[in-house]
Amino acid sequence: MPVIEIHVLQGYSDDDKSRLCTALTHASRSVIPAMPEAVSVMVHEMAPAAYMRGGQHRTPAPALPDPTQIVQTYLQAMEARDLNTARALLDLAFTMTFPGTAPMTTLEQLIAWAKPRYRFVQKTYEGYDALQSPGAAAIVYCRGTLSGEWPDGTPFNGIRFIDRFELVAGRITRQDVWNDIAETKAETKATS
Amino acid sequence: MPVIEIHVLQGYSDDDKSRLCTALTHASRSVIPAMPEAVSVMVHEMAPAAYMRGGQHRTPAPALPDPTQIVQTYLQAMEARDLNTARALLDLAFTMTFPGTAPMTTLEQLIAWAKPRYRFVQKTYEGYDALQSPGAAAIVYCRGTLSGEWPDGTPFNGIRFIDRFELVAGRITRQDVWNDIAETKAETKATS
Amino acid sequence: MPVIEIHVLQGYSDDDKSRLCTALTHASRSVIPAMPEAVSVMVHEMAPAAYMRGGQHRTPAPALPDPTQIVQTYLQAMEARDLNTARALLDLAFTMTFPGTAPMTTLEQLIAWAKPRYRFVQKTYEGYDALQSPGAAAIVYCRGTLSGEWPDGTPFNGIRFIDRFELVAGRITRQDVWNDIAETKAETKATS
Amino acid sequence: MPVIEIHVLQGYSDDDKSRLCTALTHASRSVIPAMPEAVSVMVHEMAPAAYMRGGQHRTPAPALPDPTQIVQTYLQAMEARDLNTARALLDLAFTMTFPGTAPMTTLEQLIAWAKPRYRFVQKTYEGYDALQSPGAAAIVYCRGTLSGEWPDGTPFNGIRFIDRFELVAGRITRQDVWNDIAETKAETKATS
Amino acid sequence: MPVIEIHVLQGYSDDDKSRLCTALTHASRSVIPAMPEAVSVMVHEMAPAAYMRGGQHRTPAPALPDPTQIVQTYLQAMEARDLNTARALLDLAFTMTFPGTAPMTTLEQLIAWAKPRYRFVQKTYEGYDALQSPGAAAIVYCRGTLSGEWPDGTPFNGIRFIDRFELVAGRITRQDVWNDIAETKAETKATS
Amino acid sequence: MPVIEIHVLQGYSDDDKSRLCTALTHASRSVIPAMPEAVSVMVHEMAPAAYMRGGQHRTPAPALPDPTQIVQTYLQAMEARDLNTARALLDLAFTMTFPGTAPMTTLEQLIAWAKPRYRFVQKTYEGYDALQSPGAAAIVYCRGTLSGEWPDGTPFNGIRFIDRFELVAGRITRQDVWNDIAETKAETKATS
Repeated sequence: MPVIEIHVLQGYSDDDKSRLCTALTHASRSVIPAMPEAVSVMVHEMAPAAYMRGGQHRTPAPALPDPTQIVQTYLQAMEARDLNTARALLDLAFTMTFPGTAPMTTLEQLIAWAKPRYRFVQKTYEGYDALQSPGAAAIVYCRGTLSGEWPDGTPFNGIRFIDRFELVAGRITRQDVWNDIAETKAETKATS
Repeated sequence: MPVIEIHVLQGYSDDDKSRLCTALTHASRSVIPAMPEAVSVMVHEMAPAAYMRGGQHRTPAPALPDPTQIVQTYLQAMEARDLNTARALLDLAFTMTFPGTAPMTTLEQLIAWAKPRYRFVQKTYEGYDALQSPGAAAIVYCRGTLSGEWPDGTPFNGIRFIDRFELVAGRITRQDVWNDIAETKAETKATS
Repeated sequence: MPVIEIHVLQGYSDDDKSRLCTALTHASRSVIPAMPEAVSVMVHEMAPAAYMRGGQHRTPAPALPDPTQIVQTYLQAMEARDLNTARALLDLAFTMTFPGTAPMTTLEQLIAWAKPRYRFVQKTYEGYDALQSPGAAAIVYCRGTLSGEWPDGTPFNGIRFIDRFELVAGRITRQDVWNDIAETKAETKATS
Repeated sequence: MPVIEIHVLQGYSDDDKSRLCTALTHASRSVIPAMPEAVSVMVHEMAPAAYMRGGQHRTPAPALPDPTQIVQTYLQAMEARDLNTARALLDLAFTMTFPGTAPMTTLEQLIAWAKPRYRFVQKTYEGYDALQSPGAAAIVYCRGTLSGEWPDGTPFNGIRFIDRFELVAGRITRQDVWNDIAETKAETKATS
Repeated sequence: MPVIEIHVLQGYSDDDKSRLCTALTHASRSVIPAMPEAVSVMVHEMAPAAYMRGGQHRTPAPALPDPTQIVQTYLQAMEARDLNTARALLDLAFTMTFPGTAPMTTLEQLIAWAKPRYRFVQKTYEGYDALQSPGAAAIVYCRGTLSGEWPDGTPFNGIRFIDRFELVAGRITRQDVWNDIAETKAETKATS
Repeated sequence: MPVIEIHVLQGYSDDDKSRLCTALTHASRSVIPAMPEAVSVMVHEMAPAAYMRGGQHRTPAPALPDPTQIVQTYLQAMEARDLNTARALLDLAFTMTFPGTAPMTTLEQLIAWAKPRYRFVQKTYEGYDALQSPGAAAIVYCRGTLSGEWPDGTPFNGIRFIDRFELVAGRITRQDVWNDIAETKAETKATS
């Protein structure tokens, strides 16, 4: 059944409202086991003059961008080694941790770290999960498999990976990466 | 501002309503950058006789259990090797994938796989993330570090891990695990 | 889509609320071509202290009885010639008109009128239609076929009839009856 | 008291909303004996981007036409023997039953049937009743009296009739007619 | 907490809605001890075609003007002896009572009464209070101190006053004035 | 039209809700010139578990007492010289100003001040006005006429007075009094 109504100030785009409806739909389903078809969401938009809190009219804060889309743009830019585009999406406080690394703060560090590890790598995406944390950060997960070439030119593929991102106000503040590269190498050695 | 109202059938526990309110609060914040303090949620509970859809009164579906709690119970049981408790939380279709394994379907397989890898392992948890997927599954992530002993009795700790769980109707259907064990072993060998 | 909410004073029975939900469901469907399944109705019941109009709290008026049920009770009583039960359902201003009669005001007049016409008659019901008029009256239609015996004992059946009732405050104020008895007799004569 | 709110998708005309408000007003009065003056109806129109069901935005279905108006147009066309206009209002599955007839499916059948019965007939309308059935059909009743000339040119008038119509998606699917013509003829003969 | 929603017909200005929100905010606070910041008000404006009471659509009554503003305009005009402006704000039934006077009905009476009492007087305002009475009248209070010159040219100041106004439909119907002029004079005499 | 809905936490008494409904009714009428009969107020009470703000459930603050009632109790106690009852209604920061006095802070000061002025005084009340200020204070006005005896035993009556009270959290913080006593005395002397 759930029928959800949300009252917001006027000024959000159709896309913002769509994302809002979708987020509320699935939020309600986390407790109430309704099929999506049984969940209705209505967005009531209030003109500034028609809403008052604390004796004051209010202006709407701009919508947060879709964090999954930001992560996707960032990952594509990194794969294409378009560092300017990728860097523009990072927060000043950005850190990233890859298997075996301490937290790094620049993309250049990552590239230097990766160099001896593989010639290039491509990601095949299996799925994304996104949620808003109780704090300021939006969380985005993406997972899938890696393919590419080892430094000696041997190809590899099907290596599982998962990335976890935190974003605040539309900028990436943290990236954590796990994958089976070391496992695969160890197995390769063991069988070679 | 957002003021959220949700109409549900009567019969959910205070804890269910609490989880619902929390989920809706953060769902709205994924688009509208309001501090939690600015988000109000009201749950309107409808007696069965006071709600009709399609010309028929409805009965409320039992609330879904908190998936994070189920995952925590499962992980504790596994760490304590209490397989009966852990098994009771698994769906018939359960599969799990660890670094370097094909999907396994029984806990016994996992234990056999782990045996030559470490004497024991303990998890220190850094955080959980949970969300409802657009499908039937709830998704729970937990991440942190592993400590324990290698087969030769050498202790290890601080090894990053992340687990991803899918749950349907309160049962775990899938577990995917990534960690830096192989990376750590490779480094250890390299430096030994 | 239509999602309908109705705010009423507390005190109506579950059956009253059910009838209310059903009436609102179909009322909305008279304009919006939604399948019943797509129409939701929520009844919000207000405690007397929680509702004020014109600076005054109000008490709920007792629900109107289901007019179709009253008509059914009346028709069964008439068929069983239980005139006391039937009479108790009539308003003081009751009138009834049958084919070829002027408005009659008592059940005894009807019985006198019917006597030379048939020995007895039974109704088979095909359907009821009920609605609230813009005025005080509820309208109930019932239609179907008559069977019975002519004064000479010849049986008849399958003769179409329709009755229209008006009820005010749960009492029948008017009954209008149409049927094909005369048509059937004329045909019988013509073919005899 | 009843205060009724209905949430519909944007796009219905003022006239549609008027009919909707009226239908809901009287529907609530079928259970709660409020004078119309005490019933308030508010229509909340949702932009497509502000409403989601089952994770999808929806488009409003076009309003159903007023079934009483369609019946009126049909009856006028029939009285004026404007068969093309009348026929355009009929559903493919249209059937009609008059006193003493089997179900007929074409207007031509009706005209043939009527020919030996009267030279012409005119209807004086006393009232209409309309409602939405629980199924797909809208039901319209009209009643009043017939006047005209018998085949021999003798005039008649004041003969009671009632018509019942079913309409689906704005087309007439069924017409059932009852009247006192045979009764009147029988009386006329009896007294002549 | 209080979250207040008010449904009104479309057509009120932003300023009207602002005054409405403010009035409702403080009205709720007269019973519920919430800081203004905790009170939210939402105004839902209904198009005429989207609201029906008693089976009829309605047109919005023009908003009442702000009674405090009318009183301020009146007091400024009186201080400037702009009697035409002041008079235009008075209802036909206007009466005013000053210390020691019977009710007066014209501004000229007031001026004649004041003449022997002081050469001129100016008001310094400390505050206004306004409320809607349960009847038709809005009530406005203003208070502060008087300064000016006695008939003999001696200046005075700091004399407390309070005025109470009643306004109906935007016109002043009644003014009652209290002040400490006589008290001050008595003291002056006593000490001279 | 206005239809007002207020959502509050559960726990207010019927009398609290009554006062709330009344306050909202007249607040809306300060802008929209509806007769009280046209204003509906509905109070929706939320169980603590069914309301969340800022991710937290809340408990309702106790209702403020009716300030007019407190003022009435205070005035009766003062007239009866029941200083203990009166004092219990005063805030620590209480001050009062009477014609010609500086602000006094104790009831004893008032009694000393009044002694040479009249033997006793009684109030006849013409009316009360109460409102919530934008700040923490509730404001109550009462007005009417004084009767009593001068120090020499001569009776007086019909002397106009007005009192203005401020109350915070149910305690009187300020009383300001105006009246025509000095005016009356001056007139008496002038005519004697």
